[in-house]
Amino acid sequence: MIDVQADAAHNRMVVTFVAEPGLAVDAAMAGATVATERIDLRHHRGEHPRMGATDVVPFVPFADLPMSLCVDLAHSFGARLWKELHVPVYYYGEAARRVERRELEKVRLGGFEDLVGHIRDPDRAPDEGPPEVHPSAGATAVGARIPLIAYNVNLKTADLQVAKDIAKAIRASSGGLPNVKALGFELADRGLVQVSMNLTDYRVTNIWKVFSAIRDEATRRGVEVEASEIVGTIPLDAAVGIIKDAVVDPAFRMDQILEKRVWAAE
Amino acid sequence: MIDVQADAAHNRMVVTFVAEPGLAVDAAMAGATVATERIDLRHHRGEHPRMGATDVVPFVPFADLPMSLCVDLAHSFGARLWKELHVPVYYYGEAARRVERRELEKVRLGGFEDLVGHIRDPDRAPDEGPPEVHPSAGATAVGARIPLIAYNVNLKTADLQVAKDIAKAIRASSGGLPNVKALGFELADRGLVQVSMNLTDYRVTNIWKVFSAIRDEATRRGVEVEASEIVGTIPLDAAVGIIKDAVVDPAFRMDQILEKRVWAAE
Repeated sequence: MIDVQADAAHNRMVVTFVAEPGLAVDAAMAGATVATERIDLRHHRGEHPRMGATDVVPFVPFADLPMSLCVDLAHSFGARLWKELHVPVYYYGEAARRVERRELEKVRLGGFEDLVGHIRDPDRAPDEGPPEVHPSAGATAVGARIPLIAYNVNLKTADLQVAKDIAKAIRASSGGLPNVKALGFELADRGLVQVSMNLTDYRVTNIWKVFSAIRDEATRRGVEVEASEIVGTIPLDAAVGIIKDAVVDPAFRMDQILEKRVWAAE
Repeated sequence: MIDVQADAAHNRMVVTFVAEPGLAVDAAMAGATVATERIDLRHHRGEHPRMGATDVVPFVPFADLPMSLCVDLAHSFGARLWKELHVPVYYYGEAARRVERRELEKVRLGGFEDLVGHIRDPDRAPDEGPPEVHPSAGATAVGARIPLIAYNVNLKTADLQVAKDIAKAIRASSGGLPNVKALGFELADRGLVQVSMNLTDYRVTNIWKVFSAIRDEATRRGVEVEASEIVGTIPLDAAVGIIKDAVVDPAFRMDQILEKRVWAAE
């Protein structure tokens, strides 16, 4: 287990574990079993959208494992979740079986309460199990995806509109950088504003590209970047990508990281 | 063994291996024994300065090992080199026993041929063994140091003077960036020039700082950076330092590299 995050406001726990492929499904089932026993969504409140006691289970390839393996793990886990715990499953991301279910937000839209009323709609039918939510545990989104990167850039201004405008300029949904979700926020206690982002494919748009774009947009508005913040972990591959672009070294490879070479030799 | 580099012009082989501290000295002795048996410096020619069949043996701490351990390993190896193979030893870097021997270049200045004539000078006395070179194997520099980084930046001009001027502006010896050695070269076949560097302490001056300084110097001269080239390996720590500075994320830590966290948990 390499990371656990939980807080009262979200009333939600995010557990990150690393396992050999042969053990990953068993480990996820162990977690889902406890969640199904102990969490009753009919009495659950929290700020974060959710539709299940085990809300979302993404399988993420580590190191050189192929995505196809994680898709297989997701389908194997989803089948067991229905068969053993009677929780219906929606596949998303690379494991999606319907093109409109690739995005988690669309799968989970409206959350548990909405799903209870609409699971019998033809377009809401689960990928595993009949169209009926588990009474207390709801339904689970099971997927396969590359690691997401959470990244924020703080700007030396108190003008929220600047952050909102820059977020709009760079996000994919309004024609900005591909695979970038961005919102503008106030950091009121610091007198700054923040562009807060999720990078959904760092191989396409990495942190350096986003940082540079925001800095350019800020400069055009006469605003300076205060600092940036990489939230949580990033894969070594993403770190290498940042360096390649930042110092214009197109040949720089992961294999040039000493630790990678040593660990690979072990 | 994680890297071997050799070429006819230099007539020299650089072997990089990783070993647990308890095995490192034995492994280095095994290499030095073969070199002493097979290489006769009286008949050896090559472009690179050298004074020994086993020319230089630096012990470099990996991951979280302390430098003091590498200093101990260097002294233990040096004592055995003299005792078992009768090769005199000069300690350099962090293992130096005289302040004027901290720099390898000063220890090795003039090479084997010069040392044969001057080893009896009081300031040339070896740190291990009497003032007499091994007839065929010369003498060996044994040290402890952090990893060096070799780094080049190519400029979009054929004017060698630009590279020489920028190298001078940024190198430590003429008042530029600390722990930076730099020279200007022509890349004649490509119509470019290159600032070629060694960074002797990436914790003080990292690749990003050097890249930025060269780009600024080039811009002032109306010249563009074509690309840069990180040669060989860099420690993960150095990669993290580049990212911290490039995207202005002062809090970014090695622990945020996913692989580091996973490998540390194993």
